[in-house]
Amino acid sequence: MRVYLDNGATTKTDPRVVQEMMPYFTEMYGNTASLHSFGQEAKEAVEKARGFIASFINAQPDEIVFTSGGTESDNIAIQGVARALSTKGKHIITSKIEHPAVLEVCKHLEKEGYEVTYLNVDKHGLVNLEQLEKSIRKDTILVSIMFANNEIGTIQPIKDIGEICRKHGVYFHTDAVQALGKVPVDVKEMKIDLLSGSAHKIHGPKGVGLLYVRKGVKLAPIILGGGHEQGLRSGTTNTPGIVGFAKALELSKEPNNMLELRDRIINELLKIPETILNGHPTQRLPNNVNVCFKYIEGEAILLHLDQAGIAVSTGSACSSLKLQPSHVLTAIGLPPEIAHGSIRITLSKFTTEQEVDYFINNIKRIVHNLRELSPFWKNR
Amino acid sequence: MRVYLDNGATTKTDPRVVQEMMPYFTEMYGNTASLHSFGQEAKEAVEKARGFIASFINAQPDEIVFTSGGTESDNIAIQGVARALSTKGKHIITSKIEHPAVLEVCKHLEKEGYEVTYLNVDKHGLVNLEQLEKSIRKDTILVSIMFANNEIGTIQPIKDIGEICRKHGVYFHTDAVQALGKVPVDVKEMKIDLLSGSAHKIHGPKGVGLLYVRKGVKLAPIILGGGHEQGLRSGTTNTPGIVGFAKALELSKEPNNMLELRDRIINELLKIPETILNGHPTQRLPNNVNVCFKYIEGEAILLHLDQAGIAVSTGSACSSLKLQPSHVLTAIGLPPEIAHGSIRITLSKFTTEQEVDYFINNIKRIVHNLRELSPFWKNR
Repeated sequence: MRVYLDNGATTKTDPRVVQEMMPYFTEMYGNTASLHSFGQEAKEAVEKARGFIASFINAQPDEIVFTSGGTESDNIAIQGVARALSTKGKHIITSKIEHPAVLEVCKHLEKEGYEVTYLNVDKHGLVNLEQLEKSIRKDTILVSIMFANNEIGTIQPIKDIGEICRKHGVYFHTDAVQALGKVPVDVKEMKIDLLSGSAHKIHGPKGVGLLYVRKGVKLAPIILGGGHEQGLRSGTTNTPGIVGFAKALELSKEPNNMLELRDRIINELLKIPETILNGHPTQRLPNNVNVCFKYIEGEAILLHLDQAGIAVSTGSACSSLKLQPSHVLTAIGLPPEIAHGSIRITLSKFTTEQEVDYFINNIKRIVHNLRELSPFWKNR
Repeated sequence: MRVYLDNGATTKTDPRVVQEMMPYFTEMYGNTASLHSFGQEAKEAVEKARGFIASFINAQPDEIVFTSGGTESDNIAIQGVARALSTKGKHIITSKIEHPAVLEVCKHLEKEGYEVTYLNVDKHGLVNLEQLEKSIRKDTILVSIMFANNEIGTIQPIKDIGEICRKHGVYFHTDAVQALGKVPVDVKEMKIDLLSGSAHKIHGPKGVGLLYVRKGVKLAPIILGGGHEQGLRSGTTNTPGIVGFAKALELSKEPNNMLELRDRIINELLKIPETILNGHPTQRLPNNVNVCFKYIEGEAILLHLDQAGIAVSTGSACSSLKLQPSHVLTAIGLPPEIAHGSIRITLSKFTTEQEVDYFINNIKRIVHNLRELSPFWKNR
């Protein structure tokens, strides 16, 4: 039995999404910039997808810029605002638990003379709205706070953040890569100016993402060329990828039992002694579980689960090769030795009860066995 | 009958390429950065593809960086060298007939204080090697000259350019998007330091490209994040796209009769009076024909051909929505009124004799009819 519970890293492309993409590989394969009918039929498909995706987040079609993925979207948003507004100011506010696609860009901008405030989060991973508002200065040009955290699943009070930013006339970007297609996203109601999304986290294809750019927002492109996507992202349009992204979003509305299965996992895991749930108990992604089993290593758990055919992760896939404990778990106050004992279980709409049971049985066995071998456990 | 002769804009994805990609959508869909077996099987597929592609151009696997396409590759190469070597110098040499993905980046760098020399080309579209060598200064950090032109198909003396650059210790980047998979590319023999390639021009999928970076070349990334692709291009690896790219390159070695069909088209079109072949008579891409029919508009020809089910282009797809005459045709010395009468016919390995005959019959009829209606033709 193979059980994939690492859907926060990436997901299986839904076969219905692949089906939808197929004609755009071998039949309607024209370049959307071409004037002939091969080009125009591809363009129509892309514009139809753009319209659907726009309405999905309550945006206008011309506010959607297609990119190669969430990382590129984050880069365009942050570098783009930084360069476009550098004469207005050079101060950016973000949080300590952002994805590397946000944090690394901010660190880079610091080297270029920008100033970045990294907000603390509480033990559940929430930013403090008062601290946010106090951090806004005259030269603040952007606030970038993720919609939902990729490691611990905590969902930020996005609408409140949006209102604070709008009140102070500061652009608000949110990395919604983990949230889009899992929790309601309404860019107007939430007063979001820029939003990053990705297809492959919701059973769409890898290699395609979006950046919502509210009309009027000033942004400098970072990839230059033929002037595609209103000049904000040059490069031949990835028609099959975009069509697949729209289909994946459409299918994300199907009813599923992720929430119920998530809570079943949480309840069962918390029965194991000396186990902590990381992230917010209720304000969290419907598919995310993140727990620490004290006295043992997350990586050892991962490898033993892998031997049983089960895929989970320690931290996020993006940082799986790093030796430091997760910056997110550190930010919520976990000491390194406990952070190292954490694993992330992320479900999908395809996850079944049988798979969850198989996982629960195995993790209980593995945690028990590893602790039996752990001197820390015996001497606790 | 529908005949696609715009393969310079994009190509049909080969059904065998799609077949090769399929398992990586719905079965081996793991994130290559994940430590579990789902991740590792995806990683193995990517590394196998990387190895094949590297050997295809006589490079090492760790010299291949996967990107979202040719435009991004050009941007990383030029912006990347500019930023990495800005303390050494700020002078870049390129040509007047580059793709917008090169020219727009150069124009942007000029605004940032870099100096760019835009080399002239002769009437066939060739750069002058003496002029190139004379243009190299102490502060020159990069020469970027395309392998083969996307509009007129002219192939540059890449090896000679590479030798001049290596002699003077200047990095040589070449946009090989149109050349890769159509003419032999050997980065070692040709002394290329950086090379851009794209999958969708050779029956691979859209949304995936490569940048060859010779070991030791200094390059600053422009998309930051999780540190994928040796830190040069962050973002979740597009496994199906990369696997498809390798398959497309493999299949590009199949014998085909593009050259014969190209020459048949050229011969037949030149029988039409007052018709000029643009580009080099022999040093040109095996699939490229670019002609001017004097006294009529290229766009009118395109639309009439489209009505007959035939797709060609005026200039390149990337500039199809611009009103100015092509910068390439202008650079080879064509006056605007003649440049406006040009069309580009680009074949693929799937192009058949029947399709070529159908095209030739139709273009002869259309040119004749349009000229009958043209006052310029009557008063010539």
